[in-house]
Amino acid sequence: METPSELAFSCPVKKNQYDHVLLAHGGGGTLMQNLIASVFLPAFSNPLLNQQHDAAVIDLGGTQVAFTTDSYVVQPLFFPGGDIGSLAVHGTVNDLAMSGAKPLALSLGLILEEGFPIAELKRITASIQAAASRCGVVIATGDTKVVNKGKGDGVYINTSGIGIVPEGVLIHPRQVQPGDVVLVNGDIGRHGMAIMAVREGLEFESAIESDSAPVSDLVGQLLAAPVAIHCLRDCTRGGVAASLNEIAASRRLQIELMEESIPVRPDVEAACEILGFDPLYVANEGRFVAFLPEKEADKALAILHAHPQGQGARVIGVVRDASQPLVTMQSALGSTRILDQLSGEQLPRIC
Amino acid sequence: METPSELAFSCPVKKNQYDHVLLAHGGGGTLMQNLIASVFLPAFSNPLLNQQHDAAVIDLGGTQVAFTTDSYVVQPLFFPGGDIGSLAVHGTVNDLAMSGAKPLALSLGLILEEGFPIAELKRITASIQAAASRCGVVIATGDTKVVNKGKGDGVYINTSGIGIVPEGVLIHPRQVQPGDVVLVNGDIGRHGMAIMAVREGLEFESAIESDSAPVSDLVGQLLAAPVAIHCLRDCTRGGVAASLNEIAASRRLQIELMEESIPVRPDVEAACEILGFDPLYVANEGRFVAFLPEKEADKALAILHAHPQGQGARVIGVVRDASQPLVTMQSALGSTRILDQLSGEQLPRIC
Repeated sequence: METPSELAFSCPVKKNQYDHVLLAHGGGGTLMQNLIASVFLPAFSNPLLNQQHDAAVIDLGGTQVAFTTDSYVVQPLFFPGGDIGSLAVHGTVNDLAMSGAKPLALSLGLILEEGFPIAELKRITASIQAAASRCGVVIATGDTKVVNKGKGDGVYINTSGIGIVPEGVLIHPRQVQPGDVVLVNGDIGRHGMAIMAVREGLEFESAIESDSAPVSDLVGQLLAAPVAIHCLRDCTRGGVAASLNEIAASRRLQIELMEESIPVRPDVEAACEILGFDPLYVANEGRFVAFLPEKEADKALAILHAHPQGQGARVIGVVRDASQPLVTMQSALGSTRILDQLSGEQLPRIC
Repeated sequence: METPSELAFSCPVKKNQYDHVLLAHGGGGTLMQNLIASVFLPAFSNPLLNQQHDAAVIDLGGTQVAFTTDSYVVQPLFFPGGDIGSLAVHGTVNDLAMSGAKPLALSLGLILEEGFPIAELKRITASIQAAASRCGVVIATGDTKVVNKGKGDGVYINTSGIGIVPEGVLIHPRQVQPGDVVLVNGDIGRHGMAIMAVREGLEFESAIESDSAPVSDLVGQLLAAPVAIHCLRDCTRGGVAASLNEIAASRRLQIELMEESIPVRPDVEAACEILGFDPLYVANEGRFVAFLPEKEADKALAILHAHPQGQGARVIGVVRDASQPLVTMQSALGSTRILDQLSGEQLPRIC
């Protein structure tokens, strides 16, 4: 596995110089951005896709409908704090929430590998239903395909989702302004480290559990308050650093983080140190960054701290005008380092 | 590969007696129905899913929105008359059309295998876009995952879709009535035989091309006429026989086909004979059956025959009251045979 320092700076954003797909093309870093910029956007260019938002928002007869999709190929299928089923529900519900939408319904596309135990399938479907119930969504439509033994990995799941964006809500990267503060809704790096600890057979005093959880209810409370949120982005593949780099690049702004404000649990920090990861680049599945005017921050934090998914919320940074897009982090000692976009995910198949 | 006669009658509809997933569980026959009945419906039961329609129809602020999903795992990825990309667009657009909806937007979830050539990916994305343009839909949102070499098969695609059902349109299995005639929009069996001919290396005078095509424009014309359509169902996995058995079972009615009216091209018939298939069970990707009152048949046929996707349309059967659900076929000589639901698809990974 490549280390962050080898990966950083290795790849220009606009050009794909590879002849074959690499694992890192699915990692949420610059390699994936290259694939999007060099293959997908030129092929499919249209105003909805070009938004490059977590969900496309479509006007259907005056109703703003958010529409999103995600496939899940995580290994192992079951991990502390969740499994591929609950992950597939939370991930897509959270993508809808990032556009300000109230999630309504999911589709479920299963690609099963021949020989997969029916008992495990039932365990996963039960987990999907439990997660859907918690999120207040239904599995409205589904499809099952089976591939030959050896041509899958037990089960791959696609969930697509639709939701409704309340009237007057406009959450979008282009709303981000210099002077906005950046909040995160809790401690970071847990999902990636939960998966890695299982893969590497690491044992801690207690297992690190994934943060996999739906944030749609919390986002709904923020919008209903109302808190004047400019933009939301979940911090999945590539972690907080990838999400912030995407926003910085799309708005050509600088985002300055304060290292001492970044919430990381000690066990996650220890696991990151053992395995050589930076928690800012590690995937989360229940964490998002919010951009909002500084004067709204206290109101937002009060709502966040009162909610199970926001108890560890913190202001972690601020947005500045810049000559070129950049994410930087200031240490407690006053030194500043650049948090660049990685070329791929440090941890393949994390979701 | 099992033959139809071995597969038929082998499996009760309500109970799944297997411990592991079989290829046939993805085949659109009774094994898949068992999996749906024994695993998915008990887990996810809700009014939308329980409709078991090709698309769920959801009321969003007074607008009837159809929502559907399908994954595509066809092998080979490229075949005469199409490829996995165009198939993934046509299939999902057609599922929307089967609920009477005008398709609007698709999502695109790609699961790529490490090492897949970027040139082939570009060929597939170009095919997706060409198909989407023909269908008048946009790729509104997307996602890419990469799995390890050997854990995929080049590319798996999920497309989910949304569309709008025009006011007053109600296309549903429960609308099917005794006395309805059954139409098919053209010759059957071509998609499955196109794939099999490639897999088996069969050479005919000219290649059998898949019938993969969008039927949404044609359905739109029928509804606009208006033709009082009771139900539509596309004839994909399991072919015409599977679609008719599903409708017969859900409405507890009998469907009688007339063998001499079933349109099959001579080259498809020849390929079916060589390989031991019955064209009624072979997958199509541009064919549907329509149920409508007999008095509407001539009007429907006139519209069908004037459209590229309906030139070979025929009335193939009629719906009767019955003590138990059944699909039968009368030969030219007057003998009758039962067209039972197969346990799995005769041809795995056809779509």
